[in-house]
Parts: sequence; structure tokens; C-alpha cells
Amino acid sequence: MEALTHYQDIVKQHLSKTSFKGDPTELYEPIEYAINVGGKRLRPVICLLACELFGGKAEDAVNAALGLEVFHNFTLLHDDIMDRAPIRRGEPTVYKKWNADRAILSGDTMMVMAYDLLLKSPEHLLKKLFTIFNKIGMEVCEGQQYDMNFETQEDVTIDEYLRMIQLKTAVLIGGSMSVGATIAEVSDEQVEVLYRFGENLGMAFQLQDDWLDTFGDTKVFGKKTGGDIRENKKTYLYLKALEVANAEDKKQLQSYYSTDADSDTKVKKVVDLFNKYHISDLTKEMMDTYYQRAMSDLANLSLAADKIKPLEELANYLMRRSF
Amino acid sequence: MEALTHYQDIVKQHLSKTSFKGDPTELYEPIEYAINVGGKRLRPVICLLACELFGGKAEDAVNAALGLEVFHNFTLLHDDIMDRAPIRRGEPTVYKKWNADRAILSGDTMMVMAYDLLLKSPEHLLKKLFTIFNKIGMEVCEGQQYDMNFETQEDVTIDEYLRMIQLKTAVLIGGSMSVGATIAEVSDEQVEVLYRFGENLGMAFQLQDDWLDTFGDTKVFGKKTGGDIRENKKTYLYLKALEVANAEDKKQLQSYYSTDADSDTKVKKVVDLFNKYHISDLTKEMMDTYYQRAMSDLANLSLAADKIKPLEELANYLMRRSF
Repeated sequence: MEALTHYQDIVKQHLSKTSFKGDPTELYEPIEYAINVGGKRLRPVICLLACELFGGKAEDAVNAALGLEVFHNFTLLHDDIMDRAPIRRGEPTVYKKWNADRAILSGDTMMVMAYDLLLKSPEHLLKKLFTIFNKIGMEVCEGQQYDMNFETQEDVTIDEYLRMIQLKTAVLIGGSMSVGATIAEVSDEQVEVLYRFGENLGMAFQLQDDWLDTFGDTKVFGKKTGGDIRENKKTYLYLKALEVANAEDKKQLQSYYSTDADSDTKVKKVVDLFNKYHISDLTKEMMDTYYQRAMSDLANLSLAADKIKPLEELANYLMRRSF
Repeated sequence: MEALTHYQDIVKQHLSKTSFKGDPTELYEPIEYAINVGGKRLRPVICLLACELFGGKAEDAVNAALGLEVFHNFTLLHDDIMDRAPIRRGEPTVYKKWNADRAILSGDTMMVMAYDLLLKSPEHLLKKLFTIFNKIGMEVCEGQQYDMNFETQEDVTIDEYLRMIQLKTAVLIGGSMSVGATIAEVSDEQVEVLYRFGENLGMAFQLQDDWLDTFGDTKVFGKKTGGDIRENKKTYLYLKALEVANAEDKKQLQSYYSTDADSDTKVKKVVDLFNKYHISDLTKEMMDTYYQRAMSDLANLSLAADKIKPLEELANYLMRRSF
């Protein structure tokens, strides 16, 4: 997708011009490390794309775009402590490479940096932009707390799970759209439509991530499949299986998820149960529901067909990874 | 001090009207707890005082004032994890009452809340206010990192120590003045003078805290003295003693501080060494230097004598605790 690469280049350029150095080095070194480990820069790309689609200038949105990227990375630093995650994007997490104290404090600093980048946006838009940013910030924290709650909560419902991924992942995708569109100064109503498009796309994207973790091609997915099953993660797949399985299989599945056994046998047995109940298809159906919602949001945008195209391309890029 | 009580009441009133509740309760419960544990509400009081002195209205500053209080409490939640501090203001810290994960995430949420409170300030001042807030935010994180570095750094100088307490404590006192004065819409130059007054006062206040921890009256100080010595904290007292002691006593002092021995004997021996070198007086001298600087800042304010008085009273209130 050409537009994506174009915006990724802009983000890359500006990130390389932005200094994440400072004193004490113990504080700034993990920040530089975390930012440079990279990733798809999805959120700033979305922000720039949304801004230019509505006739705004990328240069007006680029600081806010970087702010979204730095904010996202701040959440990763703290989430990795809470999730005891040793590896991210193939490299040691900050918490593992240094320690939790460093990851806490460098994360805090990144949050301030994110706000400081956002502050470089056009002044008459600050109230709107900070309102969006704060709402995202609160919701991402709420999502992370629900995610942690689910580790010990026995009776997680599918609705609760969908609400969790909405807060933890989808609102930031939607919010990146809102920030870009707000800087392009379109109507609040159009910002809202674009937000919903992003949020629905974010939901489909996260459900795809769940699907890939179990059913994906290791080469496409980039890591070994079965990780969620090994960690007893209550994903959509698991919760859906509990919903549709017969009493005996449900009990069986719950018993697999009540042990810490991290074995290939366990993964195989759980996948067998998932297959018995067509969980792969059922998950794809749910993904598709959100994807279709996103597509119908596009119809509500006051944009010419040639402007809609990059958004469709973005959606396809995000969803095509194995389809 | 009447003005202080007046503003404390305003802060108390507004805090009681501000909801810190929300879902999931696991996220919001520690926030409510931390805010309600209380404290002197020094930062919001300073903000309101500064605003009204310059003819601003407290109602315009009260949300920013609460933002400063919530921000301060956010730093405490995270600092207490890093410092492994079990007790604050006589109650278990969030990290101890729940766990580190909860303290991290509730702290993050409080930081967003702080920004959201600040956002309720008059819109045309947002750029200035967020600039002040972000600067404070970065510096407080830098101060905390220096403080952590000092735990293992052998050769901490007095200048480094003073820079650390400036960042960790004094800039937020100064910044609370700036926020209030900015909302009163005085000149940038007057905001700067008031900032310096607050920062110098903050330095004196922190040095007093060091002094009290060793030489204070337990009844006035509110906790047992000698805590810093037991924890081998490199305070002004310790660093000054290393500077003025003879080689033998210096070695002795360093050896006391190189053990984890948490004994009354150790405290007594260290205090004896401090007394031998008049460390109490030398620390008071340094405190007084900053206090006098604060007083001369007052002379540079374009305020009538009756307006200066509450600032002098604030300074006296903060510094009189045992003098």
C-alpha cells in the first residue's frame, strides 16, 4: 500500500529528527531504545492519513502523530511489566533489559513527552485534541485493568472480552483517526464517523491477532503459534468455545486452562476442541462483522471515492495478513 | 495561617465534589484511596493563593489546582513502588495495600486525570499551562531517576544532591505558583519571579525535611527520627559531613553507610559524627540561604505589601515546623 509507506516514511523521518536523549541517561536510554525498536508506526500513519484525506496538512499533524506513537510505546513499557513479557518485537522488553523501576519511570516520562508532542499542534485545536487524548488515555488504562482482571476472573463473558479489547486496543486506533481529522478541521460529526471506522477496524484487527495466535501461519504471524493457549489467555476463541461446546467439552477445556502446563500436547488438545466447534470460522465471522461495520462507516464519510480508497486499502492491509 | 486554611477548605470542597470513581473498580479504588489519605494539599493551595494574589479568580484556577494535587499523588504512587515504601501519611501505600501492578496502572490513570483537570482551565491559557505542566512532569521524573541513581552512586556531590531535590521537589512547588499566576494572567516575567520564589522555598522545605529526619522532634516530625540514616540515604547532612570531616571520620561515616545494619547504635554513632562537625547548623545555614533567596524574590514582585504578606506567611508556615 503506497500511502502507508509514504506516511511511514514521514513518521520515520520525524522520529529521527526528534531527540529522545537527555539527562540522566538512565532515564532516557530506555526511551530511545523503546522508540527505536520500531514497529509498523500504525497509529501515527493513521493520524497523518486521516488528516490529509480531509485536506489537512501532514506537517500540522506530524507532532500529534508522533505523540500517539510515543503514547502507545509508553503503554507497552508499563504493560510489559504487568504482563511479565520478556520479548517484544523480537527484542528484550525494557522491563527485562533493565528493570521494572526503569520501565515505570521511563514510561512516565514518555507519557509527558507524548503530551508535549501533542502540544505542538495548532493552538486553537488544543482543547479538542487534549480531550480526545485524555479520553483515549483513561480508556486504555481501563482496558489494561480489565485484561488483568480476566486472568483470575472465572466467568468472563464474550461481551466483557469485546469491551476489553475495545478499550485496550481499538480506541487508540479510532483516536488516531480522530486526532488527524480534528487537525484537518472537519466537522465533529465526521470526526466521530472516522473514529468509529477506526474503532471497528481496531476490533477486527485485535480479533485477527487472537485468531493468528492459534491458527496463523508462523511465517506470517512472526512468532510461534499457540502462545495464548499456553498462557491460558481468555481470548475470543476460548470464550466462544466455552459458549458453544457441550458440557463435557466445556469442562475439559476449562481443565486445560486451569493448569500451568505449557506443553505441545495441551496446545494440540485445545486446538482439537476448537476445531470440533469450528472456532476458527466463528472467530472469522466476528472479525468480519467488525470489518463490515468499518466498511459501512466509510459510506457515511463526506469524501469522494478516491479519498475513500486509501482507507479501504488501510483496512485491507491490516486484515489481509493471512486471508 | 488564615489564607492557607481558607484555600485548604476550597481544595477540600472541590475534591469532595470530584469523582474518582469508575469502572473497573480495581483501577479507581486505589485512586480514591490515595487522594483521600490526604496531606496538606500544599500544591493546590499555593496555586490558588498565587492566582488570587494577582487578582485572578480561585474558581478559574481550582481545576488546575486539583490537577497539581492529583499529579503529585500520581508521582507518590510510582515513587513508593521504586522506593519500596510501605507507609505514607501513616497508611499503607497503594503498592503495599494492593500490589505494584495496581499502583502502576492507577498511577498512570491519575496522570491522565491530572491533565484532564488542567484542561478545564480557561481555553486561551491552555498552551501556557500545558507547557508549564509538561516541564514539571519531565523534571520530576528526572529528579526521581537521580534519586535512584544516588542509591548506588559512590561519589554524589552536594551540587548533584541539590539539583536532585530541585527537580524532585522544588520545581513542583515553583510550578504550582506559575500555574496560579498564569491563570491570573500576569506578565511572564512576574510568573518567572513567583516561580523562583516557590522553587527556593521548595529547596528550603526539602532541606528542612532532611534536617527533621535526623534532628527533629518526633512529635513535630510525626515519625521516628533517624530513618534516613537507617536507610543509608545520601542526604544533605551526610554529604556535608563527608565534605567537612577529617579522613578518619569520613571513612568511619562511609563504613556506617555501607552496611544494611538498621540499628539504634548506628543512628547514634552517625548523629555523634554529625554533631562533631556541626552538621545541624550547617544544614540550617543552607536552608536559610534558600529561604533568604525566596525572600528577596518577593521584593521583585509587583505586589503591594498586603499582597506580599500571605506569601511570607506561607513561607513561615512551611519553615516554622520546628524553628
